[in-house]
Amino acid sequence: MPDNSRFAIAIHILTLLAQAEDEAMTSEIIGGSVNTNPVFIRRILGLLNRAGLVTSRPGVGGGWQMLRDPAAITLLEVYRAVDEGHLLALHHRPPNPQCLIGRNIERTLNEYFGEAEQAFEQVLAQQTIARVLQTAQEDPPVQLH
Amino acid sequence: MPDNSRFAIAIHILTLLAQAEDEAMTSEIIGGSVNTNPVFIRRILGLLNRAGLVTSRPGVGGGWQMLRDPAAITLLEVYRAVDEGHLLALHHRPPNPQCLIGRNIERTLNEYFGEAEQAFEQVLAQQTIARVLQTAQEDPPVQLH
Repeated sequence: MPDNSRFAIAIHILTLLAQAEDEAMTSEIIGGSVNTNPVFIRRILGLLNRAGLVTSRPGVGGGWQMLRDPAAITLLEVYRAVDEGHLLALHHRPPNPQCLIGRNIERTLNEYFGEAEQAFEQVLAQQTIARVLQTAQEDPPVQLH
Repeated sequence: MPDNSRFAIAIHILTLLAQAEDEAMTSEIIGGSVNTNPVFIRRILGLLNRAGLVTSRPGVGGGWQMLRDPAAITLLEVYRAVDEGHLLALHHRPPNPQCLIGRNIERTLNEYFGEAEQAFEQVLAQQTIARVLQTAQEDPPVQLH
């Protein structure tokens, strides 16, 4: 169902910046870790900048830096910074208003889908960039065969 | 983020069939309520049929019918019948394995995204087609200005 990976990439970028602490990172270096082109990285950095999560410093030794404590940035904030849509689509075209079900189904689905999305968002609100960094810094145990 | 409305349309179809009770409905009549073409309706009916939720009766007076009690069909079952994907995309291309974050980020995101999706699915598991029918049959109160 998802048509892009902006959210995953945004978390990746913020985790790298959190690891770098006070050091600025260029979009080329970030792109090298994410394994995607710097243009796409810069587009996402632009969204994170608009949300007040990162800032850029121009010139030699410049690049991107965190603006806030990674322990205070929840995944829900990141999700909202990069995504505008709903998880679930309603009808492409309005259903038939002459039909009782057609007339009321969108209102009904909005209610139920809204509850499901809220549960989803509550989980994201409990995780932070600092936690992602901590988990990602632990290499998984080696599998012995 | 969602690229289609299969789930919404599938709920709409099942709600119509639940309302019709023992009467069979053609994909043309269903398409008239949903306001989309019968080819798309038949594709979704095919998925619901494969999941054991509906069946078709050929010939004159034939059409589609529910196979199960609408009170026992959860929205999660419908979701799984029509959708194959995850709510959240990971990276399009694998991140750089030479980078500590790049090497471990997908495992980390899989874990956190999985928890969020599970919370989302738990809400869908608590709703049934019978409940959607009941809610959709109640016209909302008229707004007085």
